[in-house]
Amino acid sequence: MRLVSFERDGKATLGVREGDAVRVLGEETLESLLARGANLVDYASSGANQQRIAASELKLLPPLQRPPKIICVGLNFADHTSESQYKQPDYPTLFFRVATSLIAHEQPMIRPAVSDSEGLDFEGEIAVVLGKGGRHIRKEDALSHVAGYSVFNDGSVREYQFKTPQWTVGKNFDGTGAFGPDLVTADELPPGVKGLRLETRLNGEVVQSASTDDMVFDVASLISVISEAITLEAGDVIVSGTPAGIGWARNPKLLMKAGDVCEVSVEKIGTLRNMIADEAAH
Amino acid sequence: MRLVSFERDGKATLGVREGDAVRVLGEETLESLLARGANLVDYASSGANQQRIAASELKLLPPLQRPPKIICVGLNFADHTSESQYKQPDYPTLFFRVATSLIAHEQPMIRPAVSDSEGLDFEGEIAVVLGKGGRHIRKEDALSHVAGYSVFNDGSVREYQFKTPQWTVGKNFDGTGAFGPDLVTADELPPGVKGLRLETRLNGEVVQSASTDDMVFDVASLISVISEAITLEAGDVIVSGTPAGIGWARNPKLLMKAGDVCEVSVEKIGTLRNMIADEAAH
Repeated sequence: MRLVSFERDGKATLGVREGDAVRVLGEETLESLLARGANLVDYASSGANQQRIAASELKLLPPLQRPPKIICVGLNFADHTSESQYKQPDYPTLFFRVATSLIAHEQPMIRPAVSDSEGLDFEGEIAVVLGKGGRHIRKEDALSHVAGYSVFNDGSVREYQFKTPQWTVGKNFDGTGAFGPDLVTADELPPGVKGLRLETRLNGEVVQSASTDDMVFDVASLISVISEAITLEAGDVIVSGTPAGIGWARNPKLLMKAGDVCEVSVEKIGTLRNMIADEAAH
Repeated sequence: MRLVSFERDGKATLGVREGDAVRVLGEETLESLLARGANLVDYASSGANQQRIAASELKLLPPLQRPPKIICVGLNFADHTSESQYKQPDYPTLFFRVATSLIAHEQPMIRPAVSDSEGLDFEGEIAVVLGKGGRHIRKEDALSHVAGYSVFNDGSVREYQFKTPQWTVGKNFDGTGAFGPDLVTADELPPGVKGLRLETRLNGEVVQSASTDDMVFDVASLISVISEAITLEAGDVIVSGTPAGIGWARNPKLLMKAGDVCEVSVEKIGTLRNMIADEAAH
């Protein structure tokens, strides 16, 4: 099942993508469904005579607009760590995003006014959405906690990321965290999304390409290790980390500017597409 | 007004502290009140014939249990930066806490089982709770966005904080972020809580003592600078950063162990008290 969140009459609405159409499920959000322990496949399979809308007519929202937590993993592809200023840690490098930074598929990704001309960079990643929370989750049980997967572009305002020892502000500008288009339920994908190709394209040119097999900490390890410290909750999103090829590490740098189009594709999951726009004057 | 959140019949309940008693306001949370733009002083002043409960009988909760964001500031007292391995940045060092890490006044602060014997450290801080959100908030307008203030102990699992370049996991173990006891509305305190004494005591001995005037970025600056990047929302909590004296920077180190009692006092706001306990076996 491919679930999509979209806006209808000003309200967040959930649907199932079926070919070129989306079957409308209703106004209960994925956050709410997951919090009450609903099985997404069962929920999306039920309901006859539901309205169908052409997918092209929808204004998509991020699959979840206010997840309880958005846990991002840095330095999780060795080739990306090598292009950074850091050594490969033997523990996942975690930071949070907040919901105010999220945008949907086809929404503009915003280059902030305070950033200099080389500010905004791409990071193609995979989003793991939990269907079941827990603490001290064993690695062998971890994948049973996953509801589904989506695509993420961890847009990074680099000079802010490196203004202090903590990356948080550079990872949390409004309008920089692209998430979507679909939440693909885990039953449709290889366990732990192993063996899938992740590719980022800027204006059609491939700038990142890697296999999910190259993650230093795979999905099951991330869930297990994070839950040693933090209670995970249904609806939490874990963002995988990005492979080599970011614009900031290139010589010359390749940062994004207004009018650029950035796409992140993950095999079997989908393509997330965003045009870059400058922040409006305030 | 001094607002307290507490548990009654398993539900989060809000009240006003009046001497040794708490006048019960009802089950609407501070998060909800602030999100709908309620004026806390007006809300808490209204209502006659409300029930009063002896404060000593209450099981307190953190003033807000699920704030939209908990934005922590690191390296915000120059004397603390000097005792750290970092240089003083000229921009606020931000990281997030998540709600799963929060505990209330008098709840045990948990030393996690995965931590070694020197793991858990104290950080006395001030919590700023926003009553009004915004983006690109001017410094001269910033204090009008504050609903009130409380006390925070940013309990830090140090060896996890330094396992990777990002502090996040060491700052987000379950049961390490103590918050409370009261939310004191801003009208009762000096603007921007200037000139107040912040003191942390471990087993009665003073281990941190500073004036809020020593913050590198004061409350108004933090609100203004953070909002250049991130949309702030009513109910967001900004945690001030800690002064010098942390246990990890001492020689020998002074970390917390089961049975220790840690208190953080901020003049005119209150005293937050937590006993340390080891994580239960799982």
